[in-house]
Amino acid sequence: MNSLIRIIGIDPGLRRTGWGIIETLGNSLKFVASGTVKSDDKADLASRLCQLHDGLAEVIHSYQPHEAAVEQTFVNKDATATLKLGQARGIAMLVPARAGLPVAEYAPNAVKKAVIGVGHGEKQQIHMMLKVLMPKATFVGNDAADALAIAICHAHNSGGARARLKALGG
Amino acid sequence: MNSLIRIIGIDPGLRRTGWGIIETLGNSLKFVASGTVKSDDKADLASRLCQLHDGLAEVIHSYQPHEAAVEQTFVNKDATATLKLGQARGIAMLVPARAGLPVAEYAPNAVKKAVIGVGHGEKQQIHMMLKVLMPKATFVGNDAADALAIAICHAHNSGGARARLKALGG
Repeated sequence: MNSLIRIIGIDPGLRRTGWGIIETLGNSLKFVASGTVKSDDKADLASRLCQLHDGLAEVIHSYQPHEAAVEQTFVNKDATATLKLGQARGIAMLVPARAGLPVAEYAPNAVKKAVIGVGHGEKQQIHMMLKVLMPKATFVGNDAADALAIAICHAHNSGGARARLKALGG
Repeated sequence: MNSLIRIIGIDPGLRRTGWGIIETLGNSLKFVASGTVKSDDKADLASRLCQLHDGLAEVIHSYQPHEAAVEQTFVNKDATATLKLGQARGIAMLVPARAGLPVAEYAPNAVKKAVIGVGHGEKQQIHMMLKVLMPKATFVGNDAADALAIAICHAHNSGGARARLKALGG
């Protein structure tokens, strides 16, 4: 139970897909890296999906995570936006699965609860708690921050870092 | 303008993704093959997306089409269904794009208009017109038939078989 697990969290989006990689060992969390894969919004849809695919495949190849976690979002009021998100999300799940990683899914509320202790909250609170949980974490923008939060949620739910998160009131 | 073009039409769906391959040469249409890639609905989502990916990649590898066309559907009333379809559609566009094919998108009405001459109609009319346009066509189920209709729509719009379709009143 005390082996090191490297987790990639992914926050999918057609324009920007955030990713964050952390390690859990026993009850500790360690920041590894984070970033954003962007697609060219002047390109056609199929090319943009290829750009997301290639960017994520490169991240997974570089950092060799053991497990993946993807946020389970949808946009209720707008079918076109939901379809776009779905297409990006399909790629975000396919790439780690093809690399042999188990892929977990978490609802946005579960992600917020794992990081800030409640099922709702502002982006700013997530940024602040990431810094409390992993003082060395660096991230640019909400997508990378959200991706790190998803990775922490998975660490929390898969057992490893539960004790540390509990100690912090999570 | 009179060179042979092999087209794959794809009707994406998470449970069943239909595919149909035709050839156009000048104003003629020729049936090549059709089928359905299925995913195991007891498997997790990431595994199902892998199954769709691998199935479509195998079809494209076997039949070596030059161009791809994918239907542009969404389910207006149900965000969960639209997200699922989006995920399957992401894979349906990614696979041909990664194989180097240009990927065109057509709205359902355009597909129906290309095959039955109007923008609405029953599945049965599509089946019948496929047999008129390509007497040697074989297909099992609506997904493969729809995929062939999408391929014909692309042939129509990309110029090749326009004359023949026009002659038939399309």
